[in-house]
Order: sequence, then C-alpha cells, then structure tokens
Amino acid sequence: MLKVGHWKDVEPIIYDDENAKAEKRVLIGKKLGAGNYIMRLFTLPVGGYTPYHTHDWEHEVFVLEGKLELKGEEETYVLEPGSFAFVPANEKHGFKNIGDTEVKFICVIPAKGGE
Amino acid sequence: MLKVGHWKDVEPIIYDDENAKAEKRVLIGKKLGAGNYIMRLFTLPVGGYTPYHTHDWEHEVFVLEGKLELKGEEETYVLEPGSFAFVPANEKHGFKNIGDTEVKFICVIPAKGGE
Repeated sequence: MLKVGHWKDVEPIIYDDENAKAEKRVLIGKKLGAGNYIMRLFTLPVGGYTPYHTHDWEHEVFVLEGKLELKGEEETYVLEPGSFAFVPANEKHGFKNIGDTEVKFICVIPAKGGE
Repeated sequence: MLKVGHWKDVEPIIYDDENAKAEKRVLIGKKLGAGNYIMRLFTLPVGGYTPYHTHDWEHEVFVLEGKLELKGEEETYVLEPGSFAFVPANEKHGFKNIGDTEVKFICVIPAKGGE
C-alpha cells in the first residue's frame, strides 16, 4: 500500500548543542515499511550545522533551500537549491548554513545507518 | 571524495510515447560511486505521466514542484511540493501531472532497479 505524507506533518528531532544545530525529520523510514534506505529532511537554521564526522555509510543529498557549505576531506563546496552531493562511506563531512535564510536538504542513507 | 553537481547540468533521458511523457535525470548513480541506491530527478511537463506499472523494487519520492497525482492499487493521492511517498515493491503505481505547471520530483530506487 502506498504511504504518503507531507514534511510539515512530521515531528522533528531537534539537535542543539556543540555538535549540531539542526532539525531532522524522518520522512520515509522503517515505520512506513522502508527497509533498504531512509529518506530524511534536514533543516539548518541561520548559523546551523551538523558535526564534522565520519561513518561507514554514504549520504545522498539534494538541496531544497538556502546556501549550504559541505566540507569534505579534500574540498569544500557551496551548495544551492537544486544541487546534489554524494558523500561516500568513510569520508569526513560536515554541513553548515552559510546563508542568511534557512537551509533545507534531503539526505538519504542506507538502513544500516539508522534513521 | 565528495561528488557534487546541479540537476541543471545533468543530461536528461527523454520519454515521449504512449508509456511515458517525462524527463529523467540520474543525479547520483553508479558513475558517482553510488552502489546501493540511486537518486533520480523526474520532470513531468504539463500533461506528462509515467507508466502505470509494477516491479519488485520500491520508490522513495519527494515532490519539489507542481501538482502530482500518484495512483496506487487501492488509492490515488494528489501530491504537492513538500509531499513524500513510499511506493513498496510490487505495488502498481503511476505518476501524472494534473496541474498547469511543470512537476519535478526526486525518486530514489535501489541499485537492483537500474538507474
């Protein structure tokens, strides 16, 4: 059976400490029956960020709104709405809102990464 | 290494026959190193559609623009920007642009579904 929703109706998980200042919404996860990969929506407020860290699973990212810095191990990119990014497993990475409006991006991970 | 791009720089695959009237762009696929799941962007022009069909892999969808009908086996939904949908494996489904502007949506599939 199809499962359908809108991100505005999904309760956010809020991070607000030295590691991260961000909201995460699990749009399509285990609750809806997704067993292979998980679609999440991140919102970074002005000044928001995620940790510069690494793990053994990849990210597939698509930017919806705002001006987003993505720092990898070798290069740093500035992403805008319509940009996409592939962060391979085991590559250090961190996201940061470097604009003066909210950032929103989709981030898909394999189920082994949790939700 | 990070791989970054913008959808506007990705060459579309164009479908225009009785089965589908749509453009597909493979944003994150095997070429970028993605081995588990593939991120594509679909554009449906006014009146555009995809086949009403089924296959043994799932879709994870996020709508960026326009008014999109998603027909499943039991129900039909109207999706708008910010809507998401999980189409389980082996569920019949078809997408149709029912608005008067272009539709754009992200659709993620497992690698076994091709690109």
